[in-house]
Amino acid sequence: MGRPHKPLLDRVRITTTALELVDEQGDFSVPQIARRLGVQTASVYHHVDGRDGIVELLRERVCAAIDSGTLDERPWETAVAAWARSYRAAFAAHPKAIPLLTTSPVRAPRVLEQYEKAVALLLDAGFALPDVMPVIIALENLVLGSALDMAAPEAMWELTDEAATPQLARALAAVAGGPTDRSFELALAGYLAHVRRLLNAP
Amino acid sequence: MGRPHKPLLDRVRITTTALELVDEQGDFSVPQIARRLGVQTASVYHHVDGRDGIVELLRERVCAAIDSGTLDERPWETAVAAWARSYRAAFAAHPKAIPLLTTSPVRAPRVLEQYEKAVALLLDAGFALPDVMPVIIALENLVLGSALDMAAPEAMWELTDEAATPQLARALAAVAGGPTDRSFELALAGYLAHVRRLLNAP
Repeated sequence: MGRPHKPLLDRVRITTTALELVDEQGDFSVPQIARRLGVQTASVYHHVDGRDGIVELLRERVCAAIDSGTLDERPWETAVAAWARSYRAAFAAHPKAIPLLTTSPVRAPRVLEQYEKAVALLLDAGFALPDVMPVIIALENLVLGSALDMAAPEAMWELTDEAATPQLARALAAVAGGPTDRSFELALAGYLAHVRRLLNAP
Repeated sequence: MGRPHKPLLDRVRITTTALELVDEQGDFSVPQIARRLGVQTASVYHHVDGRDGIVELLRERVCAAIDSGTLDERPWETAVAAWARSYRAAFAAHPKAIPLLTTSPVRAPRVLEQYEKAVALLLDAGFALPDVMPVIIALENLVLGSALDMAAPEAMWELTDEAATPQLARALAAVAGGPTDRSFELALAGYLAHVRRLLNAP
């Protein structure tokens, strides 16, 4: 037998293990990763740029599921809506990663490239420069909020005593098939309509 | 000396400890709570309705910071906007609790009461019954997404190589003072404008 084709430890395996931990616990530590991989903690640090480097590998992994080709579509509303839906699905697969990724700065080059494309799309559509980041961040707010909602239990409200909250009971009974997608599309439509007005403002 | 006024273990202390753990790690375990309180795990279970019961105590604690009096304001847009701002601030104080609370069903009576008030507000304003939950959930999407954004670092995008993303660099430079609040108000205004249209639809 020659040497194994794959090294025991590489960035892909470190990222996969970190993501497993985050999916389970909402966080990871480098010693935990080392334990799962059966190596010394120092060996993990040998492959990555510290804990922050692992967070960026996680960000790249999760964001790789976003179809950035959507940002090439035109008109801009079509591109933004398609990007938002793909972005939402990517993060809904890893809801516990959301606070970790939103509370540390974005450094991963491939993710920054995706923002560059989004900025270019909006500038190209005619948005004023100071409006561009608020427009992107407002979209991310509703995308990430809805991604969390996609990970919610089907019966999100458990009324043990319907008499205490009769109107809530009626409102829940009136929503067939779960309101998650409808809520997102409603928020997205409102967002797009409002943002369109920024474009036509003097 | 008589017996101490406060029992060593009570639901308030269990909740406080669970929230500390969640703020640190994004999750908690009952043995971790017991360790911090210096008691046996079984003693913790004696005071609460299992792990799920602790999650509901956390939900009550975090939601107690939401001013539910906002839901008594009129017209409904004023009430909804004020509730959304208060809701956002309450969750921004505990961003790591967001996925935990949004992925387990709401059972806490005091929190259900707050939903009851929100439903009553919207029905009173004339919303159709099947629209009520989607309208509430869409608002929660943008509130929770923005609460996560409030916990983000001030410099959320770190461009080590500005040449790679020149338009992103310009867009970031054009946002004075951080776009967080502006993004939320933009999303909220879009939401309210769109939702108002549901009310006037035939």
